Amino acid sequence: MTYTLVLLRHGESEWNAKNLFTGWVDVQLSDKGREEARRGGEMLKEADLLPDVVHTSLLLRAITTANLALEAAGRHWIPVKRNWRLNERHYGALQGKDKAQTLAEYGEEQFMLWRRSYDTPPPAIDAGSEFSQDADPRYATDGASDVRTECLKDVLEREIPYWENDIKADLKDGKTVLVAAHGNSLRALVKLLDGISDEDIAGLNIPTGMPLVYELDENFVPVTKGGRYLDPEAAAEAAAAVAAQGKK
Amino acid sequence: MTYTLVLLRHGESEWNAKNLFTGWVDVQLSDKGREEARRGGEMLKEADLLPDVVHTSLLLRAITTANLALEAAGRHWIPVKRNWRLNERHYGALQGKDKAQTLAEYGEEQFMLWRRSYDTPPPAIDAGSEFSQDADPRYATDGASDVRTECLKDVLEREIPYWENDIKADLKDGKTVLVAAHGNSLRALVKLLDGISDEDIAGLNIPTGMPLVYELDENFVPVTKGGRYLDPEAAAEAAAAVAAQGKK
Repeated sequence: MTYTLVLLRHGESEWNAKNLFTGWVDVQLSDKGREEARRGGEMLKEADLLPDVVHTSLLLRAITTANLALEAAGRHWIPVKRNWRLNERHYGALQGKDKAQTLAEYGEEQFMLWRRSYDTPPPAIDAGSEFSQDADPRYATDGASDVRTECLKDVLEREIPYWENDIKADLKDGKTVLVAAHGNSLRALVKLLDGISDEDIAGLNIPTGMPLVYELDENFVPVTKGGRYLDPEAAAEAAAAVAAQGKK
Repeated sequence: MTYTLVLLRHGESEWNAKNLFTGWVDVQLSDKGREEARRGGEMLKEADLLPDVVHTSLLLRAITTANLALEAAGRHWIPVKRNWRLNERHYGALQGKDKAQTLAEYGEEQFMLWRRSYDTPPPAIDAGSEFSQDADPRYATDGASDVRTECLKDVLEREIPYWENDIKADLKDGKTVLVAAHGNSLRALVKLLDGISDEDIAGLNIPTGMPLVYELDENFVPVTKGGRYLDPEAAAEAAAAVAAQGKK
């Protein structure tokens, strides 16, 4: 008896396409991102990995990814759960800024520290900034409106209660669980599942639109470390592309 | 203190456009239907009628209508609940048949009896028919796989438990509730809310994509009988068009 967890990072967003730091800014998928999401759903169907329940963040690009993938898999009718704890990392004052310009302005060391260090958050965003969520009603409860910036460690810490209480509960019910979320909220979850060190997580990239499947034992330990991608070659290529992001 | 309930009939589907009886056959919206759904969501936003929770059927056309309308209203992140009890009326053996051809074949009296009588269901669909849902996993529990045909009375009877236990609970919590569903599952709900007789319900048509808002008192009785459409003139025109359906 194993539990089945499927992770799906949203497809390319309008701001990925423009090379901007997004974080909690609520942008939609690009046409390419929509196509990636549909393709991810087709992969699930081809692999007969049919989700019984889906968990998403509160951000449109993850929600639309889930909607399109589930429609493609014929599973649009399953129960849906959403929580801000699956949101992308809050990118603080970098939200809305151009990645290449930020790299040029601050230099590669500082840039990579913000992007990949485990415990160094970017500068906090100002309350009331056009790219801040503090007045957004979806974050009115549970402390979410007060988030001003996050490092990956912060993401993992706010994600753990949701993993422990909500996702695990569905897995324990024997459900195949789909989590449609973001580069960093999924990296944090993978760090937890695979026991990756604070240093090594910097090198881990998750490609967009590629279902990553974990079979977990009764202690929620992966049967195969790192899980498996339904299309491993395409996933490896895509992850390398993510790692090169901003370096242009 | 009143409760706020918003009903939204899905936009034109691919089979509405082809003039086929659809029922539980799971077809997608047409491009026109998608546009109607978005417009419905914009109306909600313009009226500042922002849903806190959405209830949908298990059918793609209602689910997509909810997704598009909520995105247009900026409320894509609210909790989602789905249940087969909000499905369209099961059209029995008529599912998949051309409406105009059925009218020509059986005559107007029989045709209108199947379409509009309160308690005469069409002939039952054969189990195993390509247009039957009996092997569909979404209907595996709660008796839904055994449904073979329904009249409007049947729809109301299977809808009442969901109204009583699930929708009312959200209303009692003070939430603005959006129900994204179908011509007949919404007619049944309106019959219940407004206390419409078995005879008079035949004359009631609900237009697609037009939010119908009910303010309900503490006993769930409408403050204004019939509720109100956010765009009353467009709704009256559209309802007249629905009434004329099949007569071509």
